[in-house]
Amino acid sequence: MKNQITNAISDFFFEYETPRQVLVRNRRVGVVCRIIQLGVLAYIIGWVFIYEKGYQSTDIAVGSVFTKMKGVGYSSMNGTERIWDVADYVFPSQGDASFVVMTNYIITEGQKMGKCPELHGKHNCSSSADCEGGSFKRTGHGQMTGECVNETKTCQVLAWCPVEDDLVIPDPPMLMSAENYTLFIKNSVTFPLFGVSRSNLVEGIDAGYISKCLYHPESAPLCPIFRLGDIVKQSGFNFETIATVGGAIGIVVDWTCNFDVAVTHCKPKYTFHGLYGNPAETDKARASVGYNFRYAKHYMEDKIQKRTLLKVFGIRFDIIVQSLARKFDIIPTLTAIGSGVGIFGVATVVCDLVLLYLLPKRAFYKNMKFKYTDTHTQK
Amino acid sequence: MKNQITNAISDFFFEYETPRQVLVRNRRVGVVCRIIQLGVLAYIIGWVFIYEKGYQSTDIAVGSVFTKMKGVGYSSMNGTERIWDVADYVFPSQGDASFVVMTNYIITEGQKMGKCPELHGKHNCSSSADCEGGSFKRTGHGQMTGECVNETKTCQVLAWCPVEDDLVIPDPPMLMSAENYTLFIKNSVTFPLFGVSRSNLVEGIDAGYISKCLYHPESAPLCPIFRLGDIVKQSGFNFETIATVGGAIGIVVDWTCNFDVAVTHCKPKYTFHGLYGNPAETDKARASVGYNFRYAKHYMEDKIQKRTLLKVFGIRFDIIVQSLARKFDIIPTLTAIGSGVGIFGVATVVCDLVLLYLLPKRAFYKNMKFKYTDTHTQK
Amino acid sequence: MKNQITNAISDFFFEYETPRQVLVRNRRVGVVCRIIQLGVLAYIIGWVFIYEKGYQSTDIAVGSVFTKMKGVGYSSMNGTERIWDVADYVFPSQGDASFVVMTNYIITEGQKMGKCPELHGKHNCSSSADCEGGSFKRTGHGQMTGECVNETKTCQVLAWCPVEDDLVIPDPPMLMSAENYTLFIKNSVTFPLFGVSRSNLVEGIDAGYISKCLYHPESAPLCPIFRLGDIVKQSGFNFETIATVGGAIGIVVDWTCNFDVAVTHCKPKYTFHGLYGNPAETDKARASVGYNFRYAKHYMEDKIQKRTLLKVFGIRFDIIVQSLARKFDIIPTLTAIGSGVGIFGVATVVCDLVLLYLLPKRAFYKNMKFKYTDTHTQK
Repeated sequence: MKNQITNAISDFFFEYETPRQVLVRNRRVGVVCRIIQLGVLAYIIGWVFIYEKGYQSTDIAVGSVFTKMKGVGYSSMNGTERIWDVADYVFPSQGDASFVVMTNYIITEGQKMGKCPELHGKHNCSSSADCEGGSFKRTGHGQMTGECVNETKTCQVLAWCPVEDDLVIPDPPMLMSAENYTLFIKNSVTFPLFGVSRSNLVEGIDAGYISKCLYHPESAPLCPIFRLGDIVKQSGFNFETIATVGGAIGIVVDWTCNFDVAVTHCKPKYTFHGLYGNPAETDKARASVGYNFRYAKHYMEDKIQKRTLLKVFGIRFDIIVQSLARKFDIIPTLTAIGSGVGIFGVATVVCDLVLLYLLPKRAFYKNMKFKYTDTHTQK
Repeated sequence: MKNQITNAISDFFFEYETPRQVLVRNRRVGVVCRIIQLGVLAYIIGWVFIYEKGYQSTDIAVGSVFTKMKGVGYSSMNGTERIWDVADYVFPSQGDASFVVMTNYIITEGQKMGKCPELHGKHNCSSSADCEGGSFKRTGHGQMTGECVNETKTCQVLAWCPVEDDLVIPDPPMLMSAENYTLFIKNSVTFPLFGVSRSNLVEGIDAGYISKCLYHPESAPLCPIFRLGDIVKQSGFNFETIATVGGAIGIVVDWTCNFDVAVTHCKPKYTFHGLYGNPAETDKARASVGYNFRYAKHYMEDKIQKRTLLKVFGIRFDIIVQSLARKFDIIPTLTAIGSGVGIFGVATVVCDLVLLYLLPKRAFYKNMKFKYTDTHTQK
Repeated sequence: MKNQITNAISDFFFEYETPRQVLVRNRRVGVVCRIIQLGVLAYIIGWVFIYEKGYQSTDIAVGSVFTKMKGVGYSSMNGTERIWDVADYVFPSQGDASFVVMTNYIITEGQKMGKCPELHGKHNCSSSADCEGGSFKRTGHGQMTGECVNETKTCQVLAWCPVEDDLVIPDPPMLMSAENYTLFIKNSVTFPLFGVSRSNLVEGIDAGYISKCLYHPESAPLCPIFRLGDIVKQSGFNFETIATVGGAIGIVVDWTCNFDVAVTHCKPKYTFHGLYGNPAETDKARASVGYNFRYAKHYMEDKIQKRTLLKVFGIRFDIIVQSLARKFDIIPTLTAIGSGVGIFGVATVVCDLVLLYLLPKRAFYKNMKFKYTDTHTQK
């Protein structure tokens, strides 16, 4: 008994099965079949392996972005000159991946809590009956007191008074000098699957280079310092337009890396595109053009709380890190090969269909390929 | 010699191999085998191709979100009426994807640097020996001076004085009117693999529609303007509860798109769910209910730096963009087919096991299937 | 006719094809072939299924993070003692996933708009000819008036005056006490594909535990409260260095979950690493060490707008949520099996090459395996 098992095992190891095949010598079918097989082979090698790099596994990075603006703005209104530095025109101030640079503004100084008439054009009234006391309007500035102010023919509201008048946007924008501000981007990415970390300050981008370089798509594609005017231009906007009504620009830092070559070839690529509010886009995008928000600076004057309200128009920058790293991996390689062998089988099936159903001598070939078990004993 | 090679090549192209097969005419095995094969076919076509759309490749979007709140709040405390506009109740003000709407607050006005007793209930003392000078408590308001204040029986601290008393949270919340604020969401996504960009202001959502629409899951599912009360309700919270202690709500913008059909069918879907601090959840979540943070407004009074401290309770909204686009791609299609052919082979293997090991006539079939090389010469 | 079709269908269901095979009894080829086949089998089972878990599909989470700092800082400058609480040292205040804790600062009090000389060392001049009126310098503080100030030998600028002097960074840092601040992280993740939501307040982490625990990699790996000094140490920094010049630390919350086991085993893992500005890194990283930003507090004094400018040095924390969940899925399982069967086919092809081209008896085996159709009639 034990001997039998040993024999069976040794038999198993000393023999192997290989399919018996018919070698069909037929020009027509042969050529068709070889072409299909070569096509499959070309597809597997050329497309899956070389073009789509099917022998590599992919990974997406986790990253971190830090930004810093430099530059000084200058505005002049009613003879008052004013300097805007980085603490004044960047929101938020701490260097996030998403931030706004103020380029235009409507300032309402010395607001305090009180009762005053609404802005003309909004909540017009002819008598107090038109102003329901205690109610709010969605686009109003405050709570209606129920009175109609004769001078302005608008309802009186409890609000920060005087209410902001934002009917006219300053044009040209107050801070055209924003065009010359510079933006410094620090970005580090880590590909957890491959254990590789990279920074956009790649080899050769040292403190000396940074202190004097300025990004240019051809001559300085790795310099992490960008002129605002250049960014706006490359994303297809006109600076004066976007500075007046505001807009949003995405700065894509693209890390497409192949870790089968040296890691130093893994370098960022910067591209710029408008996110929304692009005046050059089709109508649907124009449905909501511009970018603005309101911001208040509070202070006390004569024991009364007051605030300076700024309606800020600006360019919002979103640093979007896009990443795709590839590296040789045995699993996708073998999966692609195995799947390719399967498709090879499909080629044979197609040729067999031609051979067995279309050729004049199909009966002959059928007989060659198949052997029939005697079925009459079964039926 | 050259002739030989040419012959070999022409031979290769004019012939092809096809496996010889036994056509087993056996009802039992035949039925079993056909059912397995049909099952595999049904799985490949029905499941992989139709249900899981295995003929498509997938892509995830990079996107950008901008938000804008509208609405005016009203509070009345000790007879003082106060209006809260968007510059007062949104943090941060610049329209980020993650922001807080203030719904309740504890205000401590006129704080200045100085020495004052700690809050009652914290750092109680009976004598100065209980207050170690120069030390801090993790939940205290300042640095202990080492003195015990007789009147309050608490340690004296160097802190912003008077210290904030946050033992009682105002209930009902100060700004119940927040329920009627509206939120406008602008979201644009780009699928880099397919080169498609979409905005949530899809076809038909123009400026005219936006100016008067309000999101409703059935009647206006594409309107990008949301009433706060609706959002809170749909995420399963009670507005008064969440407004009192604060909470966090995720607004998921779901872009599940099939680019094999027209791109205009790719539309966002909005869903709302509580993120943490959901009072309806199990105990573990309740471990840390509510959402609040502290915020200070600084000012100068009589040459002394003072501040107004606000403990802000509010609803934090996180706009989460979720995306999955699909499009026909030759690679996953052929991989699925190739893999399916492989599984077909498994079906044949299973049938062979039945045929060669289980049937009574197994010896007969074995003989039909296999041809043995004469092995005695090898052994 | 109808009968014929019925017959064909019944024939189809009651028969099946199985390839005819040669059972080659040859020790050398048999052993080689069996070893290759066993290798393929071991690869499919061991590597694809057990090691790489090829029978599972994967999903990435969408999540939400909320942070809260606790602790009081103390600074003493020129005899003035000052307390810094959470409203003073965290930017932004509302508990975002990315925030800055101030650890050092340069304060410039009482700035107002005016004309004053530039900082010494910048824009030096010997006469007014060196200062071009109306122009800006990229690193300057304002707009040059065109005058050279004799006392300082620098150009006069229109700016917030006096200009900030940031040549000397306070060392030791002003807020060394930041080491004892604590950070509380709330993080919830949702795996949309599997419909599972988890919070970092997992089972057993209740309000009682949180009130007294402190994260420690071994003894309290699930406590969501972190001491700043511990975080800095574990990310490889020296606290005093990073507190002086600033830096950035990534807190990775890693959710690697297997949903084939109970969902309660899905727990977060916290790791810490420096993002940029790590002084221990290679030269390229040192190109831009430190982290700082400028922040202004505005106030009115005697009807004049003034501001206190803070150059804030601090530690920027980025909470990075990394997630990968796996669960059994029939599609990847069958794809892996199908692909494995394909690779099995490759093994047979390799053995055939040995058998038909390398063995001395290759002609004999070739004759066994192949059957030739009579080709003379075709040529």
